Amino acid sequence: MTSAIPGFWAVIPAGGSGTRLWPLSRRSAPKFLLDVTGSGQSLLRASWARLEPLADHRILVVTGASHSDAVRRQLPMLPAESVVAEPSPRDSMPAIGLAAALVEHRDPGAVIGSFAADHVIDDEAAFHRAIHEAVALARTGELVTIGIEPTGPATGFGYIREGAALDVSGAEHGRRVEEFVEKPDLPTAEKYVESGEYRWNAGMFVVQASTLLELLAQHHPEMVATLRTIAADPDRLEELWPSLTKIAIDHAVAEPAAAAGRVAVVPADLGWDDVGDFESIAGFSDGHHGPDGIIVLAGTDDIISVDATGVVSAGSGRLVALVGVEDVIVVDTPDALLVTTPERCQDVKKVVTQLAEMGRTDLL
Amino acid sequence: MTSAIPGFWAVIPAGGSGTRLWPLSRRSAPKFLLDVTGSGQSLLRASWARLEPLADHRILVVTGASHSDAVRRQLPMLPAESVVAEPSPRDSMPAIGLAAALVEHRDPGAVIGSFAADHVIDDEAAFHRAIHEAVALARTGELVTIGIEPTGPATGFGYIREGAALDVSGAEHGRRVEEFVEKPDLPTAEKYVESGEYRWNAGMFVVQASTLLELLAQHHPEMVATLRTIAADPDRLEELWPSLTKIAIDHAVAEPAAAAGRVAVVPADLGWDDVGDFESIAGFSDGHHGPDGIIVLAGTDDIISVDATGVVSAGSGRLVALVGVEDVIVVDTPDALLVTTPERCQDVKKVVTQLAEMGRTDLL
Repeated sequence: MTSAIPGFWAVIPAGGSGTRLWPLSRRSAPKFLLDVTGSGQSLLRASWARLEPLADHRILVVTGASHSDAVRRQLPMLPAESVVAEPSPRDSMPAIGLAAALVEHRDPGAVIGSFAADHVIDDEAAFHRAIHEAVALARTGELVTIGIEPTGPATGFGYIREGAALDVSGAEHGRRVEEFVEKPDLPTAEKYVESGEYRWNAGMFVVQASTLLELLAQHHPEMVATLRTIAADPDRLEELWPSLTKIAIDHAVAEPAAAAGRVAVVPADLGWDDVGDFESIAGFSDGHHGPDGIIVLAGTDDIISVDATGVVSAGSGRLVALVGVEDVIVVDTPDALLVTTPERCQDVKKVVTQLAEMGRTDLL
Repeated sequence: MTSAIPGFWAVIPAGGSGTRLWPLSRRSAPKFLLDVTGSGQSLLRASWARLEPLADHRILVVTGASHSDAVRRQLPMLPAESVVAEPSPRDSMPAIGLAAALVEHRDPGAVIGSFAADHVIDDEAAFHRAIHEAVALARTGELVTIGIEPTGPATGFGYIREGAALDVSGAEHGRRVEEFVEKPDLPTAEKYVESGEYRWNAGMFVVQASTLLELLAQHHPEMVATLRTIAADPDRLEELWPSLTKIAIDHAVAEPAAAAGRVAVVPADLGWDDVGDFESIAGFSDGHHGPDGIIVLAGTDDIISVDATGVVSAGSGRLVALVGVEDVIVVDTPDALLVTTPERCQDVKKVVTQLAEMGRTDLL
């Protein structure tokens, strides 16, 4: 199942600053460039390694201009034209749309699969199986998403409501998508999970490049025209990019297509996580234990625990000593220290907001 | 009441490593040399400032050989002979005994008052009043201690049980000491405080130098002989010091003298604290607030709090951000970071023990 898929191109949108992972994640070193899990490779590099067996070098990374050099350094095996630098942030639709137009220009019948650069997937074999099915569905003209089996009533993700099973060869688990729903509150999330009809929306899309542009053209024909112009003449990227509407692919394409019955889902249990905050990292870092009760993200030798539990990233070279604290999150970097808890670590972004207000760009 | 007391000499034993205040306090920079309270001066310097009005330059500091240079740098107004360097640690009796012998040699009728270099006293006027009374009592041949009004059932201090009132002119609050008792457990401490008969033992002693040596001679005549030999010829300090018994003044003199009815107490409410641990520091640092809910010991400008409470020493120059943590203690230094709680901060010494076992002398 891990054989390459002919005509399949992997697109990796590498954006987002990961403010909830400050002070590890910074403007100059966003989450996707970092090894936040202690795995030994950055999230971007892990994404590439996961997709390469399926795409066999047919990989495009779309990233911000300020990060394109760093992306090229982390992925030196990619040819120069495979790292596309957005002149400015225009949200996900222009980024993925440009990738679709570039792929369509080179390979008109191609299927693209778009996967964020900063997520983790534990079960690579299950991911590969799901993408094989998704490509089979995409070849029938569907916009296909991967529906993640919920492991709990998460309120931090959008959900996908499944409909009837589809009958497509090579996609035995494929189903219709009834609708995409926004991040729910907790009681709603609990109902979703109980019903068995809902999956987490991990923002993964598999679709023929030309189908994506066709769906986009229904509401944004001018964007498709511009994207195809750039694809035919990449030298015009700087000139035309600012004219593109700033919009997410969910609103521009996925939601209207679902309403029109054009979206399918392949449910999958992948050990997926969006690495949204430090609690999330702790959840899948079971292998990186330090002293008793401490999950270590960095700096194993420089941590002393006396009756303490929690997560420690000791990345400054200084010794970190925890005494009698329970379920604490300590992130130590050379210029900033964070102390928080699993319950409150979503609010780390408020620190970033305060730093911005204080003009402390050195720490952003 | 803050006039100088004729014939009164202040002795400041400056010892102890303050392992419960690691990583602020180190072997090379023990508690008494540090401004751990954010007051703007070290505990030693504050002790000098408190005693100078009473002693009018008649001050002796007894400290370890490795700290004598630092003591002289912090107290440059003291003449060289007023900083006595112990060749090796022999506990409190040889240190205070040597000071008594040195003072007796220069001023046979003098009264000495011994006060640890690393405690804080909030109410200096009350302290001065108490010492005036204590000196009046000492002149009648008593060994006098100051009994601190308990503010709660502390288990970290020894207690003094008071007896009958004494009738000494100039010492209207003076009472007999029935006994010194060791650090109690909590139920015992609660009984002590309820009874109204017990005071905290702050280790302060006011006594004629010759009386102290006379009391010491009852059980340790050889020590007194040696101390007087050194006082007459300070060049013999290095040679004779190692022969002195390692013993605390409490066991060598105070307890036997109390049993013999020779000890008096002046009760006082001083806002005293032994600065034993970080919880203790937080308790009397009300004036040093940073962001909402945070007591700042150092680095006010570099602390961000989002719904957090606790004590922060941001002494490394790095920004410290706390998110949603309650009652946390964070001590940040250039080479080590501590995170603990008020309930458990006594166990910080266990970190120091572990570091010693690990051979991390760089951090001790």
